[in-house]
Amino acid sequence: PGVLPLCSRPQAWGRAARQPPGLLLAQRRAFSNNKIQVELDESSGVAMMKFKSPPVNSLSLDFLTEFCISLEKLENDRACRGVILTSAVPKVFSSGLDITEMCGKSTEHYAEFWRAVQETWLRLYSSNMVTVAAVNASPLDGSSPAGGCLIALSCDYRIMAENPKFSIGLNEAQLGIVAPFWFKDTFVNVVGHRVAERSLQLGSLHSVTEAHRIGLVDELVPEDKLKERAVAVMAEWLALPDHARQLTKTMMRKALLDRLVAHREEDIQNFISFISKESIQKSLRTYMEMLKKKKS
Amino acid sequence: PGVLPLCSRPQAWGRAARQPPGLLLAQRRAFSNNKIQVELDESSGVAMMKFKSPPVNSLSLDFLTEFCISLEKLENDRACRGVILTSAVPKVFSSGLDITEMCGKSTEHYAEFWRAVQETWLRLYSSNMVTVAAVNASPLDGSSPAGGCLIALSCDYRIMAENPKFSIGLNEAQLGIVAPFWFKDTFVNVVGHRVAERSLQLGSLHSVTEAHRIGLVDELVPEDKLKERAVAVMAEWLALPDHARQLTKTMMRKALLDRLVAHREEDIQNFISFISKESIQKSLRTYMEMLKKKKS
Amino acid sequence: PGVLPLCSRPQAWGRAARQPPGLLLAQRRAFSNNKIQVELDESSGVAMMKFKSPPVNSLSLDFLTEFCISLEKLENDRACRGVILTSAVPKVFSSGLDITEMCGKSTEHYAEFWRAVQETWLRLYSSNMVTVAAVNASPLDGSSPAGGCLIALSCDYRIMAENPKFSIGLNEAQLGIVAPFWFKDTFVNVVGHRVAERSLQLGSLHSVTEAHRIGLVDELVPEDKLKERAVAVMAEWLALPDHARQLTKTMMRKALLDRLVAHREEDIQNFISFISKESIQKSLRTYMEMLKKKKS
Repeated sequence: PGVLPLCSRPQAWGRAARQPPGLLLAQRRAFSNNKIQVELDESSGVAMMKFKSPPVNSLSLDFLTEFCISLEKLENDRACRGVILTSAVPKVFSSGLDITEMCGKSTEHYAEFWRAVQETWLRLYSSNMVTVAAVNASPLDGSSPAGGCLIALSCDYRIMAENPKFSIGLNEAQLGIVAPFWFKDTFVNVVGHRVAERSLQLGSLHSVTEAHRIGLVDELVPEDKLKERAVAVMAEWLALPDHARQLTKTMMRKALLDRLVAHREEDIQNFISFISKESIQKSLRTYMEMLKKKKS
Repeated sequence: PGVLPLCSRPQAWGRAARQPPGLLLAQRRAFSNNKIQVELDESSGVAMMKFKSPPVNSLSLDFLTEFCISLEKLENDRACRGVILTSAVPKVFSSGLDITEMCGKSTEHYAEFWRAVQETWLRLYSSNMVTVAAVNASPLDGSSPAGGCLIALSCDYRIMAENPKFSIGLNEAQLGIVAPFWFKDTFVNVVGHRVAERSLQLGSLHSVTEAHRIGLVDELVPEDKLKERAVAVMAEWLALPDHARQLTKTMMRKALLDRLVAHREEDIQNFISFISKESIQKSLRTYMEMLKKKKS
Repeated sequence: PGVLPLCSRPQAWGRAARQPPGLLLAQRRAFSNNKIQVELDESSGVAMMKFKSPPVNSLSLDFLTEFCISLEKLENDRACRGVILTSAVPKVFSSGLDITEMCGKSTEHYAEFWRAVQETWLRLYSSNMVTVAAVNASPLDGSSPAGGCLIALSCDYRIMAENPKFSIGLNEAQLGIVAPFWFKDTFVNVVGHRVAERSLQLGSLHSVTEAHRIGLVDELVPEDKLKERAVAVMAEWLALPDHARQLTKTMMRKALLDRLVAHREEDIQNFISFISKESIQKSLRTYMEMLKKKKS
């Protein structure tokens, strides 16, 4: 599947220009699939996208496919200008990439899975919509590397529930695996080189306080105010005319997006040859067994 | 007009090496034109350059032309080692680019204006002199995108008067227009990628406190201490030998300067085709009418 | 001499995997040369490398050669996973590059010296081991530009003794000389562009408090806790599997290392032609005389 070309959306100058005030019928539209539930408020132009794949919103191939489809639907919907990403599962945003997709499968499966991971990031990082992550928890019992953190990093703004038990980070190194270059570049863009270098080498899961201090999340709010605050932040962003904001976002992110597009197949091959190593497979199996024991 | 080649100034090793102590006659020299007033203190090697184009020091084509000429004069004057940029208009540093230059004019005019904007930045960002911005206010009633902020960003050091009513930022997005890539890169160099991305997308005008927190300005001082502090900061910078400092500055800034030099004509064409769009012209006219109403 | 290829070390998955618990004999091994003393604790996999070239651990050609040899020994020793760099001279980490190597010598000598400086950085910045700098002082009476700061900047983590008399920085500009591009890039990676630009132009020596605030050092501790804390930090880093951590480090640093490797001879020629200038030689002699007077 190809990537949505940047700025492919019809030029939008704010909802007011598109929707005459007399036409405020049918203000809410909802759609959902097995793992994701979306509700679009047409009066504000804001969609709420909730991950609902219990127990921990693992980013399986199915989940990522549905995520891309939902995102594309909104991207092509002129009534939608912004999307809030959050979770319908209490205390869990997403545990990250689903390890079972990376363990004991065929080369073809690894390729398909990794292409879906790339596609998710390409669509989200290049989205013409305003994207706000409302992180209502984190990979505490994370069954995998923190793809959930990557989703948050790819949004325009990150709000996190202020719970001392929550944490967030790209913890790949803890599993003996390595984040791809575009995870790394996205991370460096958000927290800077020094912090990214240390955090990635240590596979750090940062507490909410620390995540806020290093800029990994932009704002902390009490758990019960999370969605309310996300809606308020979204309203600030939507006060701007869409077209100039979109061109500005493209200017900031295009170099990085282009780098993955140019090296996409190579990146897939790297992933396959790394993940297929017996030492890595063993390390992932050990990690999964550890998680199973923890639960029981 | 061409750009001054980097490091074209005669090698200078500090005032002491050039001016025997017995020769301290005629210590102050002044020149001025319609919009800018310059006073050079030969004993310290410091020039004070004051914008005096009321009501808001709009960066018109005339202003930018005079600014470049003044800067070039100082650049070629061996008695001048540093320049402090400030305003002679109370409570206003500069309201930024003059919108009337971008509205309802010919293609040729747009080209000439944009070339002057580029030239101003190229000269200031590459200056061999120490450049300190003493921002005595900001585009509160800003009649345009914040070229005034760009001037401050292009200096070596930024001091701002601590007035809760003042603000500073690159607010292009609020007018429906987009900052060019070299505004963006200059901004990223100062505040980092995450902050720049959000600030540019929102067209934020930051309060003085926030501007200081994000590093957009280096230091806040009470309004009545602004020039005194600028002179003290300049003295610290001039305690260093010029040549090593100049080579270091070139090393830090050359990549970015080269990028605009290489894409200068393309950047002008981009500006012309963007600004000539009827939707953009309409947006600018609306903005100007809003400003007029505000004043009356 | 060539550079160690990145990741040339045999794959290591932590000490546990390589050393059966029953074999804990001969836990400590030491070696030393004229200027550097190394002690490797085989039970933890951690080497303590102490500079002992009084009075100020000047980075002479001999010192740098011995430093590279010591580093290579550890790099090739499967029992060693991390190295702590510190000084055996009280209150002095390193005064930086030895000016006498740059003054009144032959072109051949300058070339040999500069190649050794490059080699030191290439080996340290690309090390597969975890590298922690325990900065027990700084170039207070620094007889030269702060190569000592560069050594700290090239480590994975920097801890500094909290003594109000200590300072740290790249003070080249104060001597009228210019840091090479790879000093600059290493510095930018740690403190960001704005801070690096100002600090390099001013040749700033930062107090410990300021060094911590700008991120030049990661942590401050009381002088008597310095090594204890370094050992504790090292243990945190060694809790991670080596292979993923090493690949991550390579991913973060490779672009910068490659840039010097590609321009190595050019960089040597630049150094020679700059340092051979009579004005620079004079400036260095003046600086050395000032230091001599200060001492007597």
